[in-house]
This record gives sequence, structure tokens and C-alpha cells, in this order.
Amino acid sequence: MRYFLLSFFLGVFTLPTPLAAETGDDAWLRYAPVDVAMRGRYDRLPAYVAALGDSVVIKSAQAELIRGVRGMLGRTLRAERDLPRGSAIVLGTFAGVQAARLAIRLPTGLREDGYWLKTITLNGFPCLLITAPNDRGVLYGVFALSRRIGLGEAVSQLDEQQAPYAPIRWVNEWNNLDGTIERGYAGPSLFFEKDDVVEDLSRARDYARLLASVGINGCVVNNVNANPRVIRAEFLPQLARLAAAFRPWGVRLGVSIDLGSPKIIGGLDTFDPLDPRVANWWKEKFDEIYRVIPDLGGVVVKADSEGRLGPSTYGRTHADAANVLARALRPHGGLIFYRAFVYDHHLDWRNLKNDRARAAYDNFHSLDGQFDDNAVVQIKNGPIDFQVREPASPLFGGLEKTNQAIELQITQEYTGQQRHLCFLVPMWKAVLDIDMHAQGAGTPVKALVAGKTFRRPVGGFVAVSNVGRDPTWLGHHLAMANLYGFGGLAWNPDLSARRIGEEWTRLTFGHDLRVVETIANILLQSWPTYEKYTGPLGAGTLTDILGSHYGPGIESSEENGWGQWHRADHDGIGMDRTVATGTGYIGQYRPPVAGLYESRANCPDELLLFMHHVLYTYVLHSGKTVIQHIYDSHYEGAEQAERFVGQWRSLRGRIDEPRYRQVLARLEYQAGHAQVWRDAVCNWFLRKSGIHDAKGRVGHFPNRLEAESAELEGYQIEEVKPWEAASGGKAVECLSSAPPCVASFRYEGKPGWRDVSVQYFDQNNGASRFKLFVAGQLVDEWVADDALPSRRMGADSSTRRKTKGLALRPGDEIRIEGFPDAGESAPIDYLEIRPTARGVPGVSLGERIPRQ
Amino acid sequence: MRYFLLSFFLGVFTLPTPLAAETGDDAWLRYAPVDVAMRGRYDRLPAYVAALGDSVVIKSAQAELIRGVRGMLGRTLRAERDLPRGSAIVLGTFAGVQAARLAIRLPTGLREDGYWLKTITLNGFPCLLITAPNDRGVLYGVFALSRRIGLGEAVSQLDEQQAPYAPIRWVNEWNNLDGTIERGYAGPSLFFEKDDVVEDLSRARDYARLLASVGINGCVVNNVNANPRVIRAEFLPQLARLAAAFRPWGVRLGVSIDLGSPKIIGGLDTFDPLDPRVANWWKEKFDEIYRVIPDLGGVVVKADSEGRLGPSTYGRTHADAANVLARALRPHGGLIFYRAFVYDHHLDWRNLKNDRARAAYDNFHSLDGQFDDNAVVQIKNGPIDFQVREPASPLFGGLEKTNQAIELQITQEYTGQQRHLCFLVPMWKAVLDIDMHAQGAGTPVKALVAGKTFRRPVGGFVAVSNVGRDPTWLGHHLAMANLYGFGGLAWNPDLSARRIGEEWTRLTFGHDLRVVETIANILLQSWPTYEKYTGPLGAGTLTDILGSHYGPGIESSEENGWGQWHRADHDGIGMDRTVATGTGYIGQYRPPVAGLYESRANCPDELLLFMHHVLYTYVLHSGKTVIQHIYDSHYEGAEQAERFVGQWRSLRGRIDEPRYRQVLARLEYQAGHAQVWRDAVCNWFLRKSGIHDAKGRVGHFPNRLEAESAELEGYQIEEVKPWEAASGGKAVECLSSAPPCVASFRYEGKPGWRDVSVQYFDQNNGASRFKLFVAGQLVDEWVADDALPSRRMGADSSTRRKTKGLALRPGDEIRIEGFPDAGESAPIDYLEIRPTARGVPGVSLGERIPRQ
Repeated sequence: MRYFLLSFFLGVFTLPTPLAAETGDDAWLRYAPVDVAMRGRYDRLPAYVAALGDSVVIKSAQAELIRGVRGMLGRTLRAERDLPRGSAIVLGTFAGVQAARLAIRLPTGLREDGYWLKTITLNGFPCLLITAPNDRGVLYGVFALSRRIGLGEAVSQLDEQQAPYAPIRWVNEWNNLDGTIERGYAGPSLFFEKDDVVEDLSRARDYARLLASVGINGCVVNNVNANPRVIRAEFLPQLARLAAAFRPWGVRLGVSIDLGSPKIIGGLDTFDPLDPRVANWWKEKFDEIYRVIPDLGGVVVKADSEGRLGPSTYGRTHADAANVLARALRPHGGLIFYRAFVYDHHLDWRNLKNDRARAAYDNFHSLDGQFDDNAVVQIKNGPIDFQVREPASPLFGGLEKTNQAIELQITQEYTGQQRHLCFLVPMWKAVLDIDMHAQGAGTPVKALVAGKTFRRPVGGFVAVSNVGRDPTWLGHHLAMANLYGFGGLAWNPDLSARRIGEEWTRLTFGHDLRVVETIANILLQSWPTYEKYTGPLGAGTLTDILGSHYGPGIESSEENGWGQWHRADHDGIGMDRTVATGTGYIGQYRPPVAGLYESRANCPDELLLFMHHVLYTYVLHSGKTVIQHIYDSHYEGAEQAERFVGQWRSLRGRIDEPRYRQVLARLEYQAGHAQVWRDAVCNWFLRKSGIHDAKGRVGHFPNRLEAESAELEGYQIEEVKPWEAASGGKAVECLSSAPPCVASFRYEGKPGWRDVSVQYFDQNNGASRFKLFVAGQLVDEWVADDALPSRRMGADSSTRRKTKGLALRPGDEIRIEGFPDAGESAPIDYLEIRPTARGVPGVSLGERIPRQ
Repeated sequence: MRYFLLSFFLGVFTLPTPLAAETGDDAWLRYAPVDVAMRGRYDRLPAYVAALGDSVVIKSAQAELIRGVRGMLGRTLRAERDLPRGSAIVLGTFAGVQAARLAIRLPTGLREDGYWLKTITLNGFPCLLITAPNDRGVLYGVFALSRRIGLGEAVSQLDEQQAPYAPIRWVNEWNNLDGTIERGYAGPSLFFEKDDVVEDLSRARDYARLLASVGINGCVVNNVNANPRVIRAEFLPQLARLAAAFRPWGVRLGVSIDLGSPKIIGGLDTFDPLDPRVANWWKEKFDEIYRVIPDLGGVVVKADSEGRLGPSTYGRTHADAANVLARALRPHGGLIFYRAFVYDHHLDWRNLKNDRARAAYDNFHSLDGQFDDNAVVQIKNGPIDFQVREPASPLFGGLEKTNQAIELQITQEYTGQQRHLCFLVPMWKAVLDIDMHAQGAGTPVKALVAGKTFRRPVGGFVAVSNVGRDPTWLGHHLAMANLYGFGGLAWNPDLSARRIGEEWTRLTFGHDLRVVETIANILLQSWPTYEKYTGPLGAGTLTDILGSHYGPGIESSEENGWGQWHRADHDGIGMDRTVATGTGYIGQYRPPVAGLYESRANCPDELLLFMHHVLYTYVLHSGKTVIQHIYDSHYEGAEQAERFVGQWRSLRGRIDEPRYRQVLARLEYQAGHAQVWRDAVCNWFLRKSGIHDAKGRVGHFPNRLEAESAELEGYQIEEVKPWEAASGGKAVECLSSAPPCVASFRYEGKPGWRDVSVQYFDQNNGASRFKLFVAGQLVDEWVADDALPSRRMGADSSTRRKTKGLALRPGDEIRIEGFPDAGESAPIDYLEIRPTARGVPGVSLGERIPRQ
């Protein structure tokens, strides 16, 4: 697995590249034809591919190489089982190479899943050997070779050894047996449907292939909120089908289980982990499972968390619970992943000493050393829950004699749900690189979780992926950079985010230099941008934490037991987590880290509100007050989101049209929704603090005409809750029995070409229609049929339609007709009118041209 | 209607242009966004479009301009009914301009359908006036303005008058009421379905819009082999719906009628045109029709032709027949188009003096002066029937007191049926420009048909279009250049073919210079290329004239009464049409023309075999013998067809992918089928003449392995008829009860990368499957599911699959497995193996990559 870039190749890649319409199905494994200018470089590629040994993984490797070379070079390699009399690519494990008596000195010390690409001479013919300690390594070697060709790199004189940073490189899929996916944003499950495993597993196989190509070797298919049925005897043959779909790609199946299973499905009257009957039940259950799936990778357990059963029922520890499973799994080589995401979600919010962030450390630190060697504590990157910015969980530095894995989230639960672009690799790296000082300096999170610091037998990286049946896998073509990037970091966390972003872009969109640079830049700016217009200074994603976790909902985190408090009031904001005056959370870090956070003066700005409660007038390192930072960052973020649209548009004609359009539509939506975020957050803080924006923007919208101030026929004015979710706190709804309803505005600006944006609410319970008229002339019409995550008018459903290039003159009537549908009442928030840019393309995606 | 090109703009058009996926629906009216570099040029375009008058055509013109500007410039013009106080584009007829009291001096002498684009100042505002004698002219002016913008031309200082060359600019559609189309190659009818007019006429409206955009003003919707029902009283409301669909676009409806109608549907016992009851019946019928369709353009009649009823039943003349209709139509302003395509299709082929080519002149020349003034004799361009090469019909020069129109054929009946590319504008121009010396020199066909030479009241251009429901309209994106070109020539026959080709390409595919030049070059070479590999030296398209009129079938024209004879025997080939020794056909031309053709020495090579019978050893002006010309031209043509593929491939990434692929697939198919043509014709003449190819190619196929020589399991050897339709005269069919059948070949060439083509038969009665193996490895598989025009093995169904980039070594088994389906028996003709080009893209369209 190599991730690097030869910049001196850039020049030749700017020739026109093929622009076949693409769905995204093949993600970065498109095997697009290599540019003409580069193709000669591979003329001497051997014509044979010999596979030594016949494991299903080696067979996949051989077929994959044939597929890749056919796609990229238009040639069909000859599949051989023995060494041919000719130049060949030879695939085999070390054992296979030895059995074939090849005169090769194999490397020593290459770890499992690592590989060696080596140009050699066999029987007088130049050959390319791809070998590895195990067959999965050979498969990874094949993907590495294909990637080299895909990146236009030479393959003629190779001697390259690669091995993964950590043995655990897993994904978790929160799929329910009914086919839904908890926090999944790309359609239904690949694995389950109507409480069974799906008939057609071709998409599951394709997914395993994608995972293998970035070195991921385990996949837990069902939700951590597990249905106990998944390990019932009658379900096991179905699980076995999934395992068989993954097996050719070296991906081991994992399942989430319910700790209460011995009682719920086992017929016992207890699930007490220390009860010998329970231990025996688990032993027999795993013996039974492994008879059907001999290579099951392991299980994941969420216990005593958010209502799940756990050892606390019997006064037992998490180690007790993990170990009863570990012992049943050990004879089969299985792992138990025990999630550290354990907290009380009925915390008393009135008590300023209470702190959910403390929970993982409080629950697990004292158990260090009590977990068996095949148990792994799976720890979310931050102490809360995948917020846009969190510090590293102190638990990473708090376990020395316990295996650990970091749990990251590819599915963007709190980071825009794949409707907003948020390339998470920089965020993940920020956590992985934090030195926890667990054994003096030099113990970054990545080394701890990989087991390097304390020489643990296993450890590594887990990510919640939640791909779905959408052809794009994650719902946004660019979101796939996160899946690719997770694989890259799990293999080598020292890779830079830019390198990963550029490599992924080349494989996904080709080598056009403008495409590569533009997309990589957009990717790298996307997380900081999202952070700016959502949750500032470590206060968390200021979203509706009680529902969708999507749009702004500033107060939803307060005055309830979930503990995602930011404690904003009239005077200030932030959680005091200091040892001196706060919850004491900071004391969970080792002293050098705790010292940094404890001091308000030293604490980095981006985590200030996570660690401290400060006044709005507190001055940051940046020299700005907290309140002005909130205003400025939200305006900057929304402007940056708008710029992404223009940057993406500059790629028109350089990317195949279907993917160009899908991404453009998402970025245009994001630009609009970033303004919803900006306005909600800024207006809320303005009202709460009473402190005005030094730049005079917040609360002033000179280009905006509120629907509640329009002349209305049929439309009626409604309060939107929370108030910050709508401009002016109000919107209009068409509840009339005689639609359409009409909102009529009067344009009083200067005459000229204008773009008119209609901010409306697109709920998920109907498909309202809208018509836009200027001076009686129909100029646009559209249907509100997006699938935004709300049935209500609010920040989740607020969206916009921009109609460009309208000639307006003072006194013009701008009329909107709304046609409700199925409970969606064609609601409108406001109109925004801005000058049309000169000489700029006007017709954009989704702006259908009515045929008059 | 202007067709010109400003070459100094070319430079700026090479910026990347948008590549939105396109279906072809909008043809050249795509209104694609104007390139950024050009857009500033239109910043000062007025914001208003004022329509003076409210005819449906003026309304269309206004809406069309709004649509065009919105698409190309992203701005929505303000639709006004009166002059606004601002800069405006003003649309109106002369009458409208006068009624609005604009201070404009209108031009005199501008003919109907002509227009004037004029920059003026109104009320102090700069305005652009689009005016015309009639509303159709205003519409044409709007299309001219939009085309200017589409071509990137300036629109700021205009003063342009344009008028059409001839008043008749019609298309005929040979649509049957059941929805089929005679000689239609692009799906079912836009107009009819199940003996009724279709419910949804949106596609018919779109077609009328396309027609209007190139100045076509009449459309006959039903087959000239007319179903009498079309003018039954109960059907008229349906026709009226069609007329209403066309009306906003200034396209007048026409219908084909059956001359026997008075008897068949009228209840009379005769249809004798001189019987007063018949005359009265027609009068009443047209009075009835015009009550429902007040603007019916006229009717078309095919009589005494190919089994149709005609005046000969009663010993009456064609003039009698035409005039009875003309008199009934005259009060309503309707035209009668009387087709000159009258001939005896039971001619005695044994009589060498018989000649179908004489028929039109023989039947109509003597009637000159007897046709009423609203009757038009509609004459096919050549004396036979739309062959790849014919001289101009002598009848054009033989009518002085009769209105005439030329009948061209857009649908490629004898020129590849839109599976082969054949840009017909050069062929049409070759005929239109022939000087018939009808009144001394200077009477080219175009002037005669337009009525200019003899100052006829009407005349012009008709083309058989036969568009269908296929999104491409004609089945091949590039074939639309013929529809565009027909409109262009009917408006101005002096336009060059290159100008038309380049302009169409720019509007259809954008302004990328490489795209424009490549496509224009392909277009311009396509007719000569098609001629080369089909019918040489004026012998006619050597196709199966008894059936599909598609693939080669050299003997089908002989020894039957249809009269498309080429008279090829063991010694020579050609129809002797001289006055001296032949059929006397040449005597139908005026002396200067006849003198050219009568002399074998003067007769142009390309018409030699049309005019003369010569020995195969006869030496042409080119210095080649006839037989060597036949061989050489067929090899040249097939090679050129192959080059088209490479030229088209060079546009990958410069054209949107769906259209790129559709055209590529057709060109690849054409390249293969050109070889079928080449081999059939060359082999046939070799066997007939016994004269070998001086270059040693004909009959020698060193890279070919015949299926009948393979090792067969299940497959059995069959004779193909005619023998020249298959390589070696034989093929293999899988009639086994236990498919698949297997044909196994042994490769004995040198080792290396090879492309393997499988020549097989894809009949239209099933979808056989094929698998291709090399040394036991599956390397390709495909389904024979093209819709070629035959149920039999033969030249019509012969096609190929090319699998590129296979590594072969001597002794390799190449195995084809065939899986028959529904009467199609997976038949194979041969295998052809050629070296793979180095550094050339290998994966092409349709070459699906099996996932191993």
C-alpha cells in the first residue's frame, strides 16, 4: 500500500482525459484507461499472471489484476497456474513461492498483510513477483501495483516492501436487520432487508473489494445496537453467506451482539457474565458460529450505554463482560471489541460538576489490566460523540495493559450527513497526532491505539462507515475520500491529508491538473469550513442533538440529561472542565496535556469552549473576542462554502457530467444551508448576548424580503421553532383549501440583471411545487422533492432555489405561487435578490428551463 | 437564415466547453451555454423582448427567444406586449410594426418568409428589430438571431435581410397510421399509433420547432402509400390536432391521399378524375377538410406506381388526376404534389431496350403545360430511386410550363440506413448544381425546381425525412446533419457543404476546434466513402433491392422486373442507355447534357456504368481498368471507414459521453460492415470476371480463420445465400439441442499482443450469447442483440466483435461458445486476428469487461 505522488508527472497529465459518464459504483477502482501519453510506459508489462496456490484470495488477486490491466491498458493478461515460459507477473505467498522452488531470498520480518513487489528474473525472463507472508498481503500487493499504473507510475524496476501500521483495520456498519441504517445517509443496507440477509450480495462483494483495496480487513455488518437474532442458530447460514461474500477479498466478517443474548435468546434466566451457565452458553454459541463461519473476525459489544443491557445489571465490570466473550472466542482466534462509549444520558444538567466527557475514562481507566488479550476497548476519537471538533479522548492515554482501537466515523453524523462536504482526514490526523504523554513524550494517539507504545498484541483503527445502496456508496461522490482516507491512515497514519486527497482524486477523477488541485483544495478546506459555520471554538456542533443531528439547534443540547452542554447564557459560553473550578475532566489527561488545557491562557482557541467557560468578551489568542469570533467565523464559513461552488464549476467539462452534476447539486445546497447555519447561530448569539457584530452584518439583510412581510393570498404566517431556524423567526405556509397560495413581493431596487433566491422549506412528507413570476411572466418553477431529514419547517428543511439572470426594475411584482402536497404546505421563508455576475454562466443544475 | 462562419473566432473557442450528457433530443437547438470567453459580448443584449401582435407564431417566436437566451446566456428576457421604456428586442410583422407606428422605413421586395434583423433606436433606447412580411418570417428571424449567439457572432450592429430561395421547403414523412414508418430507421412514428394520432404530441411539436429553425414550412405526415382513412370525416379532428401542433412553428400540415378515395371511402363507383361526380366529391371533401384545418398546406399523391391506383385505370393522364385535386384545393390555397415516381415494375429484363430510368420523363414530359398552377410535379433527384449515385432526372429539364419540386431523401434508404454515416449534402449539391441547359446554359436543377428559370408561381424542395421516436430523431446523431443541411439548401442552395457541416457541428457539439474540424471532415468524406465500398461508377447501390435495401446483394437487381439492372456478366457491366445502341435514355437530356453522357470517352467515370455497358478491362479516365477500380475503391472505402473510428476516438473527452458513445458504436459497426461490403462485392466480381486483383488482396485473407474450418462441437456448417454474403460462402450455426456449441481454433501465428475479431451474424429474431476463451481463459462475452434488418444469416446481419489486447502464442486454442436464443442460432462466419496497436487505448465501447 503506497501513497505517494510524483509531482514531475503532473505536466503530462493535462491532456484531455476520457469523460465516460460514471455513477460512482467503482469509486477509486475505476481502472480508467491510462492517458495516451503514459501508455507506452507499460508496453513491456508481462503478458502472463501466474498465481501460485489456489486460495480464494489469491484467485481474487489474479482476477483483479487482469481486470485492472484490461481497464487501464486494454490488454487481457493470461491467467496461469504455473510459471509460464515467458515474462510474467507472479503472485504467491511466501509458502507458495517456496513450494514452487523459485530461487528467491524472501524478506524476513515482513508483518502479516504486508507485501513485497520485486522485479526478478525467472528462467531467463523478466518477471514481477508479488509476494507476502499471507494471501491477503498478496492481494494488497496486487492493488498496490494497479494503483501504481492508475497513478501513471513506473512499474519496471520494483523492490518495494510495505506493511500496515496496525493489525486492526476494521469498519463498522450500523445496519439494522430490517434494512435501515442508523445514521446512514446513502440508502438502505447492502446486507439486510426485511430481517434477512439480501438475496443478491453482489454489492456486498463490491464493497469488500473496495475495502480490500485500501487494506481494510474486517467488517462488522450490523448495528452496535444489536438485534439478538443475528446469532440465532437459524440466522447463521445467512451470516455465512455474507462471510463468503467477503472472504475472497480478505475481509473478515464481524457481528455486533447483545450482551443480554443468553437471557433473550438463550433461554437462561440471566446474562450475568460471571455466571458459569452464561459463560458456557457463550462458549457453545461461538463453537456453533465458528462451525459455520470458521474465519469470523470477532464481535462488537455496546453495553450499559444509551439503554443497552450491560454488566451493571449484575454489578459486574465491563472487563467481566468482555472477558466472558473473549474466552469463548479465544479458541477460534476471534476478537471482542468492547465499546468505551458508556455514559449516563440522564445526567442532571443543573449540576455544573457533571460531565459526560468524563465517562469513558471514569468507566474504563480503573479496569486497565483486567481485559483478556483478545479483548479490545474501542474508543471514540473524542470524549463526547463525533463532534466537529473534540480533543482526543483521555482514555487513549489511560490504558497501558489493555488493547485499544480508535473508533472514527466516516458517516458524517454530526458533520453534514454527506449533504455537506467534510473531508475528515485532517480532523482524524489532528487526533491521531496528539501526544498523550502516556510514557513520556512521543506517545501519539496513533501509536497507542496501534499497540506500539505498550507492546500490545493487537490494536488499531475502526471506522463507522455506513455505506448504502446509493450508487455513490456514501451519498456524495466526494465523501468517498473519507473511506479511502480511513484505509490510508489505518495503513500509514503518517501520510499527509493532502497526499491522500490528491491520490484519491487522481484515481477517482483522473489526472487533469486543474481537477486534482481544485478538488484536493476543496477537500482540505472543507472540514475547517464546516467547523466555522457550525460549532466554534470546541463548543461542539451546535445542532439539534435531540433529533437529526443535522441543522442548527443551539439550545437543544441544554437543559437535558444528554450532557452535550455548551452552557451558553447571556454572559458567556463553554464547559468549565478544569480541575480547579470545573468538572475535573482535564485531570484525566497526563500532566503535560492537562497543563495545556487547564490554563485558559494556554488552551488552544479551537478547544477553548470545550475546556473553559468564558465571557463573550473574552479575547482569544487571535485577538478577537469570543462573540466576534462566532460572528466572523460563521460569515467566513458560509462565504467559503459559496466559493466551493464556483471552484467546482470551474471543473465543468473536465469531469464526467453525472458526477459533476451530483457534486455541484450538493455543493450548491451546502452553500445555501451554510447560510441557514450562519444566520441561526449568529442571530441566536446576538439575541442571547446583546452584543452587536462589529462589522454590522448580523441581523441585517438588506437584500432580503421576508415572506411574512409580503402580500399574501392563502398563505398564512407561522412561527418557526426554534426561532433562529427561520429568518425573522417566521415563515408562511399554504394551508388554504384553494391552492395555489400566493406571496407577492415588490422590488424596489435599482433596475438591472438580478439573481433571485427563494428560501423555502422542503420537508420530507410531500412534494410541494412552486412557481416564480416576475411582472406576470413565469420565470421558474420547481418541485420541493429533496429528502431532507425533517417533516417540519425548520433548519433541517430550509433550502433555496436560485433563479439567475432576471431583469428587474423598480416596482416589479415578484410573485411566488405555492402548491402544497401531502402535508407539505409549500412554506416560504424569504426572498434574496442579488446582482447577476457579468459574463458568468447562468444556467445551473436543477434550474430547469420551463418551455413556454 | 444565414449560414456563415467567422474563422477568426476559432481561436477563442478552444477553451473547455461544457459536456453535459445529451440525448440528441434538442439536436442543433441545444442552446448550450456560450463559452465564458464569448459571454461578455452579449452583456448589452436588451432585457426586454416585445412582441407586436399576438399570432401563435409571434408568440412562439417570443418564447423561443426567451428560451434561447436563457440557455445560452443564463438570462431571462422580459416578455412584453408593447414597447417598453428600455432597450428591447422588438418582434413584429411589417403590419405589426406599422400598427405600432414605429418610425421605421420597412424594406420593399422582401419575399414571404424572409426577415430583417435591424439595430435601431426607439424612444431613445437601442433596440433590435426583427421584422418580416409574415409572422413565419419573424420566427425565422428569431432563430437567425439565436443561431448568431450560438455561433458566437456579434449581435450589436445588425442590418441583415434574408429570404428563401424557393417557396416550397417541405418534408414528407412516410408514416403509416399503425405507427410504423416505411423506410424509417429511428423507431416508431411521432404522429400515429394504432391507427390513430398519438395522444401526446409534444414530440411532434418539438419536431416542428426543429423544422422551423431551418426554414422548413410544410410537413406531410403520412406515407405516400396512403391509407385512405386519413381523410375520412371521423379522422379529421385527429389531423386537426396535428395541424395545431405544427401551427405555432409556421409549419403547414400536408397529407398523402389515395387517388382511389372517391371509390374506396366515398361510396362512388368510380374515381375517374374526369367524372364530374368525382370532381364534386373531391371539392366537398376538401371543403370539409379546410373547415377543420383552415391552413392545410396541401396533399401528395403517388399514383400508378408500385401497385397504387392511378388515372391509367380510366385511360386518363396524370395531369387529369392532378387537376381534379388542384381545382378542389385552389379555393383554399392548397397545393397538390403529384409524384413523378411512376414506372412499370414488371419490365421484361430480357429486353435490353427496356429502361426504368426513362419512366418519369416518358410519363410526364408530354404533359407539360397541362397541370394547373397549384399542382407541383415532385421529381426524385435521380431517374431510379435514391441510389448512392445517379445523374439528375432528365425531367427537371423537360418541364417548362409545369411547377416542379425536387424530392430528396434524408432517410438513408439506400445509403446505409443511418447505421452507416452518409452526409448527403454533397450528393444533393452535385445534383442541384447540374446545368440542364433547359434554356441555354445557366439553368441548374436548383433554379428549375425553384421555378426561377421559367418563372413558375411555385416550386422548391421536398425531402423524405422519416424521423422517429428515437431520441436522436434519425437513429444516428450525425445523420441529423442531413436534416439541417436540407433546410439549409432549401433556403440557400449556394451554401457549401463544408459551411453547412461546420455550422451544424458547432451548434450540435460546440466550438472546440478539433471537434469542428474532425466532424466536418468525417461528414464531407462520408458519402464518397460509402459510395466506394458499395456501388461503383454509377452502377447503383449494389444492395439487396428486393428486401432491406441495406447490405450487399449484387445479383438481386438482375433478372427481375424492377429495372434496377446493372447488367454485370462474365465480361462486363453497365446499362447501355445511349441513343446509339442502348435504351435511348440519354436522349431525354437536352443536347449539351446528352452529348456529354452519350460519349463513353466524355462520360464522367462516376456515371460510366449508369450510361454505358463496358468490359471489365475498359480503362477509365483514372487510368485504371473498371475491375481494378472496383477492387481498389472497395478497399479504399473500407479503410476510410476504419479511419473514421480513429478520428472519432480522438474526440473522446471533447464530446459528451452519451453522444460520443452512440456515434462511436455506429462508426465501429460501420467499419466492420464496410468490410462485409468490400468482401462481398470484390469476391463476386472476382468470381464473375475471373480477373485477379492486381494488388493480390481480393480472395486472400491471411489473418482470417474460417468457422467452417474450425473444430466444431454442436455447430454445423451451413451455406449462406447469396454466397458472397459470408466469407468462404459458409458459416456455422448452433442448431444443437444441447447448447452451447463450440468452435475451436488453433492460433499458429507469432507470439504477441493481438486483437481478435469474431465475425458473426446478429439476426433480429433472438439474442444469442457468445463467450470467447483463449487457452481456457474467458476473455470476452457478449450478446447479439442489435436490431439489424434481417431474420437470416447474410450480409444484412453480418457484424463483428473485436476483443483487443489478447496475449497469444503459437498453439493457443481460441474457443468460441455460442448460446442460441429464440431462433437465432449463434452463427459465426470467421475469426480475424491482427496485432494490437502499441500505446493505443484498448477498451472500447461495447467491449464489456467480464468480472472474473
